[in-house]
Amino acid sequence: MMTSSYSNSPCAACKFLRRKCNQDCIFAPYFPPEEPKKFANVHKVFGASNVSKLLNEVLPHQREDTVNSLAYEAEARIKDPVYGCVGFISGLQRQLLGLQKELDATNADLIQFTIQGSSSLGLGHVDYSNGFYNYPSNFEQ
Amino acid sequence: MMTSSYSNSPCAACKFLRRKCNQDCIFAPYFPPEEPKKFANVHKVFGASNVSKLLNEVLPHQREDTVNSLAYEAEARIKDPVYGCVGFISGLQRQLLGLQKELDATNADLIQFTIQGSSSLGLGHVDYSNGFYNYPSNFEQ
Repeated sequence: MMTSSYSNSPCAACKFLRRKCNQDCIFAPYFPPEEPKKFANVHKVFGASNVSKLLNEVLPHQREDTVNSLAYEAEARIKDPVYGCVGFISGLQRQLLGLQKELDATNADLIQFTIQGSSSLGLGHVDYSNGFYNYPSNFEQ
Repeated sequence: MMTSSYSNSPCAACKFLRRKCNQDCIFAPYFPPEEPKKFANVHKVFGASNVSKLLNEVLPHQREDTVNSLAYEAEARIKDPVYGCVGFISGLQRQLLGLQKELDATNADLIQFTIQGSSSLGLGHVDYSNGFYNYPSNFEQ
């Protein structure tokens, strides 16, 4: 039975590469024919042979996560050829820094409140304008 | 002068690929010979021809950032073949969520203080144990 022809439609990778999709195709479980873009993207950014090499290097149960992270990186690189998903990392790091500053400022105010009581707290920089208590910060965008 | 031989030592890419490094080499400005690992990494993960194609697609002033983001992604993928730098993104997103929860809780306490005064605030969950006012949170690690 193993040598009989594989009658299902070829996976997205084999269709893209115009080759026969065998039962032992390394791509087939992760690149179903109904998601042609997923393979096209990783092929464009990493190359089919690099993807195949990587899939053979990781453990079988890690292959799905590997393909999904490659697909994510590839899509990001196609959308932003200069920074790819490294642009997301920079943005998240900036947001994290901004939020940490905001938390430090809020904690510092809370300490003031705890030590001195509400009467002596400078509430000048609390912004009530939109109905929420937003702490303005030096949030870098 | 443009056709004279290029006497400097070949860039890391040409050295790696064992080819002649010409004055118009697309890799040379970004892969100096003293950083051989940088090219070896992007070559392993993306392939030399994909890198070259990408460099030709972006504007000349964007090429340095492009190479550096590729080198960052490549290094991350070599260190973590399953998640690459997508693992950093997940980690940063978790940290951001945790910090946002912490900030929301701190702001809620501050509002309590402002409205009810310090006497009625439940300070039970402020942790003074290490000399800092840390707000315990449901921070997901």
